[in-house]
Amino acid sequence: MRDALDCARCAAAAAPSLAGADSQMRSAAIVAAADRLLARASDVIEANGRDMARAVEAGMSAPLRDRLLLDEGRVASMAASMREVAAQPDPLGRVIGGRTLDSGIRMEQVTVPLGVVAIVYEARPNVTADAIALCLRSGNACVLRGGSAAAESCEAIADACVEGVVSVGLPRDSCTLVTKPGHEQTTELMHANGLVDVLIPRGGASLIRACLEGSTVPVIETGMGNCHIYIESSADVEMARDIVVNAKTSRPGVCNAAESLLCDRAIAEKALPVVCAALSERGVELVGDPEAVGIATSHGVPMSHASEEDWGTEYLDLKMSVRCVSGVEEAISCINHYGTGHSECIVSSDYDASERFLRGVDAAAVYVNASTRFTDGGMFGLGTEIGISTQKLHVRGPMGASALTSTKYLLRGEGQTR
Amino acid sequence: MRDALDCARCAAAAAPSLAGADSQMRSAAIVAAADRLLARASDVIEANGRDMARAVEAGMSAPLRDRLLLDEGRVASMAASMREVAAQPDPLGRVIGGRTLDSGIRMEQVTVPLGVVAIVYEARPNVTADAIALCLRSGNACVLRGGSAAAESCEAIADACVEGVVSVGLPRDSCTLVTKPGHEQTTELMHANGLVDVLIPRGGASLIRACLEGSTVPVIETGMGNCHIYIESSADVEMARDIVVNAKTSRPGVCNAAESLLCDRAIAEKALPVVCAALSERGVELVGDPEAVGIATSHGVPMSHASEEDWGTEYLDLKMSVRCVSGVEEAISCINHYGTGHSECIVSSDYDASERFLRGVDAAAVYVNASTRFTDGGMFGLGTEIGISTQKLHVRGPMGASALTSTKYLLRGEGQTR
Repeated sequence: MRDALDCARCAAAAAPSLAGADSQMRSAAIVAAADRLLARASDVIEANGRDMARAVEAGMSAPLRDRLLLDEGRVASMAASMREVAAQPDPLGRVIGGRTLDSGIRMEQVTVPLGVVAIVYEARPNVTADAIALCLRSGNACVLRGGSAAAESCEAIADACVEGVVSVGLPRDSCTLVTKPGHEQTTELMHANGLVDVLIPRGGASLIRACLEGSTVPVIETGMGNCHIYIESSADVEMARDIVVNAKTSRPGVCNAAESLLCDRAIAEKALPVVCAALSERGVELVGDPEAVGIATSHGVPMSHASEEDWGTEYLDLKMSVRCVSGVEEAISCINHYGTGHSECIVSSDYDASERFLRGVDAAAVYVNASTRFTDGGMFGLGTEIGISTQKLHVRGPMGASALTSTKYLLRGEGQTR
Repeated sequence: MRDALDCARCAAAAAPSLAGADSQMRSAAIVAAADRLLARASDVIEANGRDMARAVEAGMSAPLRDRLLLDEGRVASMAASMREVAAQPDPLGRVIGGRTLDSGIRMEQVTVPLGVVAIVYEARPNVTADAIALCLRSGNACVLRGGSAAAESCEAIADACVEGVVSVGLPRDSCTLVTKPGHEQTTELMHANGLVDVLIPRGGASLIRACLEGSTVPVIETGMGNCHIYIESSADVEMARDIVVNAKTSRPGVCNAAESLLCDRAIAEKALPVVCAALSERGVELVGDPEAVGIATSHGVPMSHASEEDWGTEYLDLKMSVRCVSGVEEAISCINHYGTGHSECIVSSDYDASERFLRGVDAAAVYVNASTRFTDGGMFGLGTEIGISTQKLHVRGPMGASALTSTKYLLRGEGQTR
């Protein structure tokens, strides 16, 4: 069993080797890790079987069990994601700025690894493989802390990947997994200043809040998504219906699913009955403000009254809040008040209203006429993601390998003094 | 008197107007602020006179009094820095990435303001003007909290600037100053989540540590500089002497001043007597490892024995630690161990050693053959700076207006669902 501080120390010791490895070697390590993962798929699936058995015994809910489950297809898709990351352009050593200073010193600003990245996640074993691939691509050593319910799966995945990493000549501790149980291991990571450069919590609200409030190591806030869809007065009602249904029901448990529907008063009588009926048919429980409730119920669509708390709630379930607003400005201020800065959408055929919405809404991803479900590293072309940042510092939105880099100024002179 | 929470609330309310103002208007606000600052220079200098009188009474040290003092020349130079910031290219609305997703959605990633920036600083009144200019240029509202010793100066500067901001039609609360005394005001800012988007402490080690440890609002760590100069075996001794003397003595109280000298054993007998004698002549107290002490004292240069604590100390004074190392790898590991990631320098005429140093040292700015004193927003072409980040997340090195921006993905579709 390996504790958090041991992992952090060993990862910090391995970090310079990773930072010094060239692009080809880092990619080769990912490909080798993916190869070993496939070669050891049966071990991984067996380990997952033991986690699943415990989960069933512990009464884990079906959606959580589904996230935990690994089969051959899922192992293959983890390996495929890793290969996609390996094939991406090198995020390191990119010259992102430069100038000759007045003194004649030649300055360039280049991208460099962060150093050691710690990722704390829940019972989603695939995060282990995603994190290893993205950290290797960006030249970072990593400390992984998976959820206890996925302990055996994560260990089997990490073991296989580390074999690959070692096979190309990179240090074993390039990727470390905290296997000692107990919440205090996460707390150790939160205070491993000087060893861990960034902590990325990936999971539920309470995990993220605990890291934000308790950590002295810099944290990247991820994944809270109280996402809205605003049906503007010029919207095509069928398009609105399709987008809302997709954003709400295609995968209700994920952070880019929509949770709240705003409808312009000017189109509410026309749009709400259609959209709400479609949601209701798919089993979505609706709560709304008095106006929305009036319109829905008068058309035979069940909707109960929303409480103030509803507007700020990320249901992650087949439930949606509905509210009438007077125009795009009210929609924007409502979203900026209740939203979590994740993904927000306007359905509109009016150019001016759409552009005002794009400008005015303060979120990682703002959509015109498309489902919020597109906010995702794979969809955005990053291969996979280590999380979706809902903060404004450092990185915002889906985080790929380049989100795990910093910069450094290199200055070359001939004896200049000031 | 205005408290921190009131400032934060009002700044948050003003932030959307600033984010919506175009480049020309934000620049015009800075120019108008600089104009009013000059027009009211005598008020500012009078207010500063009252701060200075209290400082003298309180027995403030001469270097601190010098940082507090304002005269006509210094007010003019504050205004000139502001104008330089106003003339810079717009950091907002820059398209930094884009692609058409497989689904046909057109995605672009653009720069946007952070929202509300809080700056907590000590008795340096010029920070007030610098912060106002940089926040306006980047479309951020700001909350300023200056040191109590500079209270009247900061208020006079802020009042003048706000007059200018209002004159171009931007909200009065674009720039707010916390005038209520007491440390708990800083604590309020550290916990103003949802109102303040980032907190930048600019000052001594204890202020920065308090913010890093206590703040739930994201913090940018600034300014700690335990900077090294490494004289490599191939160094030109006269160049080394000039760089070390400049980096140590030209302004010993600032963060980019050198604090520690590393000398390759292969050149120590030749270089140390020359360099240490030059330092000693300029009143620098030297402490060293036994080898350095032996060489210096045998050449009549006074040097006492360094303690382990010395290697990690930012003296900010005419004192320097000296140590002999065996080659560039030992220099790099010594710097990465004791340094604060600010500015580090190698003096060398060997290409390979220089490049290894540039790659291996983990710091915001790494120099070959130039004084560490160049790490500065003005020198780097940023007009002025809001601080020098020594962290790796978000921004590293001198922070100009573009360091105060985030990004947003804009996605335009035609009804796409996933």
